Amino acid sequence: MASIKPSVPKGTRDFSPAEMAKRNYIFDTIKGVFRKYGYQQIETPAIENLSTLMGKYGDEGDKLIFKILNSGDFLSKVDQQKLTTYNSQLITGELSEKALRYDLTVPFARYVVMHQNEITFPFKRFQVQPVWRADRPQRGRYREFYQCDADVVGSDSLLNEAEFVMIYDEALCKLGLKDFTIKLNNRKILSGIAEIIDKNDNVIDLTVAIDKLDKIGLDGVIKELRERGFNQADIEKIKPVILLQGTNEMKLASLREALASSAIGLKGCDEIQSVLDYIASCELKTATLELDITLARGLNYYTGAIFEVKTNEVAMGSIGGGGRYDDLTGMFGLKDLTGAGISFGADRIYDVMEELNLFPVTTNQSTRVLICCFDKEGEKYALPLLQELRNSNINTELYPAGTKIKKQLEYANNKQIHYTIVIGSDEMQSGLLSFKDMTSGLQEKLPAKQILEKLIQ
Amino acid sequence: MASIKPSVPKGTRDFSPAEMAKRNYIFDTIKGVFRKYGYQQIETPAIENLSTLMGKYGDEGDKLIFKILNSGDFLSKVDQQKLTTYNSQLITGELSEKALRYDLTVPFARYVVMHQNEITFPFKRFQVQPVWRADRPQRGRYREFYQCDADVVGSDSLLNEAEFVMIYDEALCKLGLKDFTIKLNNRKILSGIAEIIDKNDNVIDLTVAIDKLDKIGLDGVIKELRERGFNQADIEKIKPVILLQGTNEMKLASLREALASSAIGLKGCDEIQSVLDYIASCELKTATLELDITLARGLNYYTGAIFEVKTNEVAMGSIGGGGRYDDLTGMFGLKDLTGAGISFGADRIYDVMEELNLFPVTTNQSTRVLICCFDKEGEKYALPLLQELRNSNINTELYPAGTKIKKQLEYANNKQIHYTIVIGSDEMQSGLLSFKDMTSGLQEKLPAKQILEKLIQ
Repeated sequence: MASIKPSVPKGTRDFSPAEMAKRNYIFDTIKGVFRKYGYQQIETPAIENLSTLMGKYGDEGDKLIFKILNSGDFLSKVDQQKLTTYNSQLITGELSEKALRYDLTVPFARYVVMHQNEITFPFKRFQVQPVWRADRPQRGRYREFYQCDADVVGSDSLLNEAEFVMIYDEALCKLGLKDFTIKLNNRKILSGIAEIIDKNDNVIDLTVAIDKLDKIGLDGVIKELRERGFNQADIEKIKPVILLQGTNEMKLASLREALASSAIGLKGCDEIQSVLDYIASCELKTATLELDITLARGLNYYTGAIFEVKTNEVAMGSIGGGGRYDDLTGMFGLKDLTGAGISFGADRIYDVMEELNLFPVTTNQSTRVLICCFDKEGEKYALPLLQELRNSNINTELYPAGTKIKKQLEYANNKQIHYTIVIGSDEMQSGLLSFKDMTSGLQEKLPAKQILEKLIQ
Repeated sequence: MASIKPSVPKGTRDFSPAEMAKRNYIFDTIKGVFRKYGYQQIETPAIENLSTLMGKYGDEGDKLIFKILNSGDFLSKVDQQKLTTYNSQLITGELSEKALRYDLTVPFARYVVMHQNEITFPFKRFQVQPVWRADRPQRGRYREFYQCDADVVGSDSLLNEAEFVMIYDEALCKLGLKDFTIKLNNRKILSGIAEIIDKNDNVIDLTVAIDKLDKIGLDGVIKELRERGFNQADIEKIKPVILLQGTNEMKLASLREALASSAIGLKGCDEIQSVLDYIASCELKTATLELDITLARGLNYYTGAIFEVKTNEVAMGSIGGGGRYDDLTGMFGLKDLTGAGISFGADRIYDVMEELNLFPVTTNQSTRVLICCFDKEGEKYALPLLQELRNSNINTELYPAGTKIKKQLEYANNKQIHYTIVIGSDEMQSGLLSFKDMTSGLQEKLPAKQILEKLIQ
């Protein structure tokens, strides 16, 4: 077998023990908060039927779905005439029946429909699994990455929206973020704005344009609105709405005035008010909650609340987002099941935490004690102590005999092992073992029993 | 968008909250033991370059690797002449550059070679990730399933082998298994047997035949040996060896006699002796360790110890296995790096535990308290209590108002929620809330403060 220089595919990554420890720290923290709020974990297969995924993410999305080549003699199923047109798109469906999961939302909708008779509604589930997209890889954008989602279906209560805000607050606070904003909007307000200017059919054009306020400023938005067919009168009506200032309550009051003639717009205001009321009677730990009516986020399936989370400590895109959707399972034939969900951007949260140095120094400490010895005799002497330490639930390693002590201690340092116990012939004779705290450098000669007691404390 | 009846691909599975809780229980237990022995987690991408995987699992394996169709206009890269031969195998490599991980061992070897300069050897890693095989699905065999592996590379010490036995013992004991056997053999003994009958080139034929002793009995094995070209004299020499009886020490003594003329055979005996010695100075909690020279397991890359684990409580194939390999990274150009590893068969362990009813009843208990109320007023009253409970790290849900209490209590039962707190108008007036233990049925009227105290205890 010829030796090849190994690599991983573009846009995919290996995770080292140190990276895994940090990733687990993030995922475990978020999962713990999901559980605290009553969300339960499910998993779905990495492979879905191609028909489950196609048509759910728009034409661009369809192209970015990784398709799996049928097994065996895959060409036998392909129409030969079609094949000789050399039109890839035409024969994709004949070469491939399965594809890799593109997000966690569509598989979740499929799951709910398939298992509707076993599920107790409201169904609060979380899911932390990788997804795959044939995107052009670039800094911070990968072809394989984890999504970390919580969704509830079968409950239209706005308590769920309020709890999502609290989940973001608690999880990100636990991870050590000290200044972040949860932006809140409601699709019904966007519809209301379209309604008051009599452009019900142009909600998407409107939202695409005002969503860019952050990036292109007011003049840019106005230019874009004009290009998208809004006239000066429209723009005059839209302008004060997108330039709302003040507290959330003040913004909401202005909005109610502006949207007075739109039933759906006022409904959106009511919904936001309810969410704010729920949150007011609890209290947020760290987050700033900001009503931002320029927030649009994915235009397709959201129908109520929309969320987006941004850190104010470093420059970084959104680290979370979500919203309410009234008909996600409709695509699989189950109508009228409302749901809402949020997602954490784990890779970005990782980068933020690295930049702010937020990972506890203990994150990567796994083995606590390394026992070092010089020879087989020392090894034999060490074995009962090794077992005692492990029986006391202390992660312990015995470095196999036959390696210089210096190298063994290097191993301890590289693995961030806190304590070493060195067993040489002096130690075996006296029963006093060399016990060293590798962090402080403090070294003592102690009997095994005392070392054990110190470590158990 | 047309509604379709959703399904998952053959051989793949969804995992419900109850199933996930049980799976997590297994994985968390095994991971905890891996960590206790100094193993650290890594992850590799689900997608590998096709060239990394092909040729590593034999011709049959190559066919079972799921290939990913190249993105975009994939036909443009295919030689048109080749295409019109309609020979699937011939053009697979032109339609596909990437494939799904088939096991965790080859990606691990690739990882070690790629990251050799960052790794501290001996490198003890564990990995728990799904793998995919285009096998014909059947009972207990899936196209997507998790592997759960620990390997050490860069240490030839037999202490590692001994620790693998201890890891199996501790993890399976922790999971509640009460009677299981860890079978131990050594490839060098199999080579020794071939050597004493002067059939060095037929080790594989020999091992394939005697590996079947369990299934086809002695007569079957003899028949198979004859078919594979072993003569009567060979068989007379092999017979006593495969029929070894008695304790491990007795078997080893007989083996030493039989293999006296084979240096490699005696080396194998020495290695087994060393492993037994290490284990004797610790002690196994539950496992029976049995020297079984008919154990062959994967013929390709093992060069020293071989392990296999079987439960004696229910009929089930092996629930774990592994061994030592002296040249795994050679396929990627890094020679002379010895390693050893084991794997847990998580799906089978799950089935064994289900059959023996070994999952703790608490496994699927996630939410501890459900607060139920009748209306918005009750909800508002409940919110501060809800937050207090959560701040005390008690997983708590508030059922959104507007649903009959009966249905709320059903929800608590279905989710195995231990306690409910019901807040009606009486309760709000008196400040005495209805607190119920859903397991015992015991119900009390208590002020919120006392409920909190009871739950924190």
